[in-house]
Amino acid sequence: MSVWFTEKQTKSFGITGKVRRTLESEQTDFQQLEMLETEEFGNMLLLDGMVMTSEKDEFVYHEMITHIPLFTHPSPKKVLVVGGGDGGTIREVLKHPDVESVMQVEIDGKVVEYSKKHLPTISSSYGDARAELLIGDGFEHIIKSEGVYDVILVDSTEPVGPAAGLFTKGFYAGIAKALKEDGIFVAQTDNPWFKSELIKHVMRDASEVFPITRLYTCNIPTYPSGMWTFTMGSKVYDPLDVSMENISELDTKYYTPELHHASFVLPRFVNRLLDKE
Amino acid sequence: MSVWFTEKQTKSFGITGKVRRTLESEQTDFQQLEMLETEEFGNMLLLDGMVMTSEKDEFVYHEMITHIPLFTHPSPKKVLVVGGGDGGTIREVLKHPDVESVMQVEIDGKVVEYSKKHLPTISSSYGDARAELLIGDGFEHIIKSEGVYDVILVDSTEPVGPAAGLFTKGFYAGIAKALKEDGIFVAQTDNPWFKSELIKHVMRDASEVFPITRLYTCNIPTYPSGMWTFTMGSKVYDPLDVSMENISELDTKYYTPELHHASFVLPRFVNRLLDKE
Repeated sequence: MSVWFTEKQTKSFGITGKVRRTLESEQTDFQQLEMLETEEFGNMLLLDGMVMTSEKDEFVYHEMITHIPLFTHPSPKKVLVVGGGDGGTIREVLKHPDVESVMQVEIDGKVVEYSKKHLPTISSSYGDARAELLIGDGFEHIIKSEGVYDVILVDSTEPVGPAAGLFTKGFYAGIAKALKEDGIFVAQTDNPWFKSELIKHVMRDASEVFPITRLYTCNIPTYPSGMWTFTMGSKVYDPLDVSMENISELDTKYYTPELHHASFVLPRFVNRLLDKE
Repeated sequence: MSVWFTEKQTKSFGITGKVRRTLESEQTDFQQLEMLETEEFGNMLLLDGMVMTSEKDEFVYHEMITHIPLFTHPSPKKVLVVGGGDGGTIREVLKHPDVESVMQVEIDGKVVEYSKKHLPTISSSYGDARAELLIGDGFEHIIKSEGVYDVILVDSTEPVGPAAGLFTKGFYAGIAKALKEDGIFVAQTDNPWFKSELIKHVMRDASEVFPITRLYTCNIPTYPSGMWTFTMGSKVYDPLDVSMENISELDTKYYTPELHHASFVLPRFVNRLLDKE
């Protein structure tokens, strides 16, 4: 006998993988949490049945949500991460020597607890002197903040369950207020094959708040369609104006200075979705 | 009750999709052929249990195997397609007005027959006056050809079953001989997450035959990892030297002049696979 997990990424399509062991399975206060030891992707975190991260391919998401905005901002000193309980995003943020502090607001303490236990290479930056963790509601933290952050990264789940409020126009307005006057935000915004309407409305809403909005992509095998998008909203700096010479060498497995630019070049069907042609 | 197909893309990971109807299921002289009507991706062709193409996402593969080399060659008049029985590649080739003739050599006539019947938007160019179809062995055709083709596209299955011979050094030498002195070839070469050794050895073998070899990628949701690679071997022309102004407007859904260049920008782990850094 063998045990396989299946994630239905749409009503009629999904991925399936062999499970060696179920490490955790728990209904937290916020969501159903599974930590699985899989054969192909190593240890894997699922929330409400959706793959959040895996040891084998996590580097793509965490590098790409982080390094694009942090190299777009000329001096990112104060960074906020909303969500990101596995710890991978703050690990990447802390690779930037300019960063003086990274505040993280994660709603579900159980995600942090089990990531520390079962995803040690991802959660390795908890305890860093520059990192502060707050277990609570990211939206509430943002509403209370004004002109504080250089960069805000929204490392959330899909817009169902606890993250639903993170995909609304009011949220982007709150982010703009919490940012300094030259701040940048990035949010993960799913994939253009199955969630084209979501991308359209996030880009439209963000563009009503930020003068510069851009969509960029990367390849994540365990995420729906394998093509993932991030939406960037920026008050001053355009990621396309970043000179490759100003991107310092970092220890990465996916991000490169050349990819900084290439990841904004979209397939025609995505351009059309955004009325770019 | 509902019926779902599952393709094990590795021993322990795969995709699964809901099937409305099985349109064809047949052991041909060469392989097991299934034509399924799926809910998410429309009609879908599988060979030996592997997804070959689907109505919803076929445009990515067919545009990217074709337009990159055909816009790299300044005047592609004679084109050879090895495999490609669904017809999607010749459909894209024939969008180029320079093309005078496209010869296609497909080993399995049943693939053509059932694609004409069930994939009408993909197989729509069969019968075009510039297209010739030969049911036979592509390798044998190449060995008999000398200095004939401007561009050769190897639109094959994985290197198991009938396509195994298409991933050998002898094959690339044969392709070089069949090409004119400024010819270009492209082959599909799987994905870097699960088949890194294949990509390494194809690039190494091709570079012993062609002065210019390049790897480029695209996103195909129904293919393993969602990131697909193509290997290009070229005698004279470098795809990176193509000026965007020289890329004429074509009716595409994925390919754009900007993507022509961006698709060669690789993630760091792929660069390292190719000893590029």
